[in-house]
Amino acid sequence: MNNFSFYNPTKILFGEGQIAKISAEIPANARVMLAYGGGSIKKNGVYQQIHDAIGEQIVCEFEGIEANPEYETLCRAADAVTANNVDFILAAGGGSVIDGVKFIAAAAHYEGDRWDILTKGGKVVKSAVAFGSVLTLPATGSEMNSGSVVTRSEYKAKLPFGSPLVYPQFSVLDPTTTYTLPMRQVINGVIDPFTHVMEQYLTYPAGGALQDRLAEGILQTLIDIGPEAIAQPENYEVRANVMWCATMALNGLIGVGVPQDWSTHMIGHELTALYGLDHAQTLAVVLPANLRVRKADKMAKLVQFAERVWHIQEGTDAEKAEAGIAKTEEFFRNLGAGTRIEDYDLDASIIDVVIKQLEAHGMVKLGEHQDVTPEVSRNILNAALRSGNPA
Amino acid sequence: MNNFSFYNPTKILFGEGQIAKISAEIPANARVMLAYGGGSIKKNGVYQQIHDAIGEQIVCEFEGIEANPEYETLCRAADAVTANNVDFILAAGGGSVIDGVKFIAAAAHYEGDRWDILTKGGKVVKSAVAFGSVLTLPATGSEMNSGSVVTRSEYKAKLPFGSPLVYPQFSVLDPTTTYTLPMRQVINGVIDPFTHVMEQYLTYPAGGALQDRLAEGILQTLIDIGPEAIAQPENYEVRANVMWCATMALNGLIGVGVPQDWSTHMIGHELTALYGLDHAQTLAVVLPANLRVRKADKMAKLVQFAERVWHIQEGTDAEKAEAGIAKTEEFFRNLGAGTRIEDYDLDASIIDVVIKQLEAHGMVKLGEHQDVTPEVSRNILNAALRSGNPA
Repeated sequence: MNNFSFYNPTKILFGEGQIAKISAEIPANARVMLAYGGGSIKKNGVYQQIHDAIGEQIVCEFEGIEANPEYETLCRAADAVTANNVDFILAAGGGSVIDGVKFIAAAAHYEGDRWDILTKGGKVVKSAVAFGSVLTLPATGSEMNSGSVVTRSEYKAKLPFGSPLVYPQFSVLDPTTTYTLPMRQVINGVIDPFTHVMEQYLTYPAGGALQDRLAEGILQTLIDIGPEAIAQPENYEVRANVMWCATMALNGLIGVGVPQDWSTHMIGHELTALYGLDHAQTLAVVLPANLRVRKADKMAKLVQFAERVWHIQEGTDAEKAEAGIAKTEEFFRNLGAGTRIEDYDLDASIIDVVIKQLEAHGMVKLGEHQDVTPEVSRNILNAALRSGNPA
Repeated sequence: MNNFSFYNPTKILFGEGQIAKISAEIPANARVMLAYGGGSIKKNGVYQQIHDAIGEQIVCEFEGIEANPEYETLCRAADAVTANNVDFILAAGGGSVIDGVKFIAAAAHYEGDRWDILTKGGKVVKSAVAFGSVLTLPATGSEMNSGSVVTRSEYKAKLPFGSPLVYPQFSVLDPTTTYTLPMRQVINGVIDPFTHVMEQYLTYPAGGALQDRLAEGILQTLIDIGPEAIAQPENYEVRANVMWCATMALNGLIGVGVPQDWSTHMIGHELTALYGLDHAQTLAVVLPANLRVRKADKMAKLVQFAERVWHIQEGTDAEKAEAGIAKTEEFFRNLGAGTRIEDYDLDASIIDVVIKQLEAHGMVKLGEHQDVTPEVSRNILNAALRSGNPA
């Protein structure tokens, strides 16, 4: 096990009706900006519940944070924070809104070119506006971590930053707010945390016996209840467990002291930036192909994954590894996600373009061994092209 | 799943050599008290490492916090905090030292009778001295939670308190500090976290699918590596995983949103207060008997425990439940712990005495249904009396 430090001060308020408690979490004299996306919170009652709880503290609202939050949009919001003397931001929405608010919080206090925050990394962030969140779309884990991903369409760029200064002070997770989500979002909300776990788990054995068990526990829960989350939109227990899985998948705990991969995410980010696929759709496409192409390097953990998570006991190691990958791809497909590039009306011509963008963004040594070069990424994209085409 | 709030701001610094990093975690102008137990930290190098890191900030030391920290001792330490204008306490030791420092931290700021903190509960605590810890004996989880148990021998009392004001600001977990532990402590360090998990897991189904999987993951890890921790004292990976299991077993995460039992602990506390058994020894005695006596109420989770943790697939539900309990008791015995009252040179005559103390301490409605009355506790103690005597 590698040395690590772990720190996560976000307070979670979980369950039906918890939005009413946020007034106790926000300083009484705070001037609050309410930030959200396309307005779905006005339809599902969340907007009203927030106003009932802290309406008199809201000095301005910022609507229109996009599904992949746009740099220019977020800069306008940061300007509004300054103009309105806002000292607390409440993010209401999914991971994009929360990611966006993390950038807004840092950018509002940043002196210099705000693009630095994404190109030089979170270390340039020395201060940020305090914020909390009301989560309505479980998937990314942003509600309990200090990372954020921001898109700048004019550059075809989707870049991450992280800083301990951008942990939400609190996050409300009310499973009933997810009942009205579009089905595509629910599917994404199972695949995204599943892949987050895989990025931290499916590398090589590194003495993290407990981390492995915890990761496997999240994977097994998602396998058990993912289909139910789609079949039974108002099953509180199921939606509650999916929501909590998504948070636990990326709050730092399962990744402490062990190697991490994240190449699936980095390749996927380019697919979103170039072709507009949902984040989770890109993961459903890239993850199985990535595991197939790098099977030899990941063999020990692939066998463990197959045995413990999919209960595959028969066959050689290589057969178990492939069976575990096939089960994973089948799981994604059965949820309703395309797992091949051609499922999204794209073809082999995109591969050169994606590779060029990876190179442009410095994503040339990805993965737990930093050996996922553009050539390996090309092999992964080739393996992801069409069904019946495993590497 | 029940509504819950979760908040745990303790920073963990994990791994060999991490003690050197504590100077960055303690305010530069802080006046530090170093608090510890019987002096084992002077033999294993921890004392020197602490002095190397922050020696010039230590204005006083308090040695002699007992294995079950004594109220009178801790009050003297709290007086020393005040007398020396201490504004940061560093606890170095196991759960007893850290529990003790939590009480010292609260008592030093408490105006009124300090006994209130234990009899009226942590809600009377309005302020506490900041503190951190260097853990040398993994078992209790105190290094990453806000609970504490204090003994007052003159009253034969061992009572808990908890307050969000007594989270350690940081805790250092260096597995190499555990290499020289006496074997009894290593055994305790497996049984204590195992039982902590069981108190939060082995109740009744309550929709906590993820919590169940995480709890089962800790149990399986302890079953896998517990024997190795005893056989291979200097196996870093094994000791690291035991240490991290102990922390994760009681940092709040696996118990959110689900019912909890804790009757094994409450009965066990009386055995320690009356007869001096180690805390974990009391758990090894009470847990199997408790599960047997309350088998009917706990049947669904006992079957799940047997199937998922012990891989028992044959038999009726009742047979699986008993097999899981028997495996647990066998696991404790194979580690080297006595699991019956008679293993500790005690006999049936203690039962009346224990029941009287439970009644005196208000422990008359224990367990997840508050139906563990003194009569049920008596049945549990009878079932725990001697080997070959299951209820």
